[in-house]
Amino acid sequence: MKQIVAQPLTQDAFAPFGDVLHASGSPDKMINQGLCGRHHDKARMDFGPDGRAGISIFNAEKRTLPYTLDLVERHPDGSQAFIPMSLDPFLVIVAEDDGGKPSNIQAFITSPGQGINLLRNTWHGVLTPLGSPGLFAVIDRIGDTPNIEEFPLEPMLVTTE
Amino acid sequence: MKQIVAQPLTQDAFAPFGDVLHASGSPDKMINQGLCGRHHDKARMDFGPDGRAGISIFNAEKRTLPYTLDLVERHPDGSQAFIPMSLDPFLVIVAEDDGGKPSNIQAFITSPGQGINLLRNTWHGVLTPLGSPGLFAVIDRIGDTPNIEEFPLEPMLVTTE
Repeated sequence: MKQIVAQPLTQDAFAPFGDVLHASGSPDKMINQGLCGRHHDKARMDFGPDGRAGISIFNAEKRTLPYTLDLVERHPDGSQAFIPMSLDPFLVIVAEDDGGKPSNIQAFITSPGQGINLLRNTWHGVLTPLGSPGLFAVIDRIGDTPNIEEFPLEPMLVTTE
Repeated sequence: MKQIVAQPLTQDAFAPFGDVLHASGSPDKMINQGLCGRHHDKARMDFGPDGRAGISIFNAEKRTLPYTLDLVERHPDGSQAFIPMSLDPFLVIVAEDDGGKPSNIQAFITSPGQGINLLRNTWHGVLTPLGSPGLFAVIDRIGDTPNIEEFPLEPMLVTTE
């Protein structure tokens, strides 16, 4: 079976697919009498002309590595952010698009305190927590369209080495 | 000094001030081949005609109880959601409005896995994590106005009993 080795999630590597949401570097602003750092407006959100932002809570089953990947999906009408509600890592799988098909599939493992925002129409794996409970706040498009395209894959194994 | 006893956060008690964001009750939809429950569109967000939603990361100092409250603030131009990125509880302080002044100040303590969304223009205390790191994703209005009003208070003590 084909194998993909998951890499630590970094903003540089992830930039073509979306944003890493974390308290990295100096805050853009100190607020609350210096007791809180604000890292400002870190997600490239895009909900199209007919959508709006919503916050939903996802409760997903914990997965383990090695993980068998057999599907990616994308949301043509909006970006989608995943904020972990625990300090556990999660597995992030994304792919480039090649004429409507996913290509160059890549896997990342988050560090504690990292969320992600997927750009509109980015191929990605389903939500795969590596801890339990797998609770996430998801900021994505609320609208009337199905807003999902799935693409089955030949099964491949995501490993850590 | 005046004292306020913080209560467990519940949707019923919090409804006049905002939304509790948690995986409570049955999911609205099961996705990802039954491995993920989606609790759909739980926040009453409102960014006005000239604002948009943004995701920022707040890194706030841990507080302890009893906590001395001496200020509340509100954001006239938009709602503000706080998603804890750890399973630690945090302290939520809100107040009703009485002719431009905060009144009937109330305090709540979250359970693990609970976030909140404050309705536009709701008086509230600054972000007060009860664990460390005090990491939160904040979904609030991005715009050109100051969007903040502060109100100093006679110091009062927030306790758990």
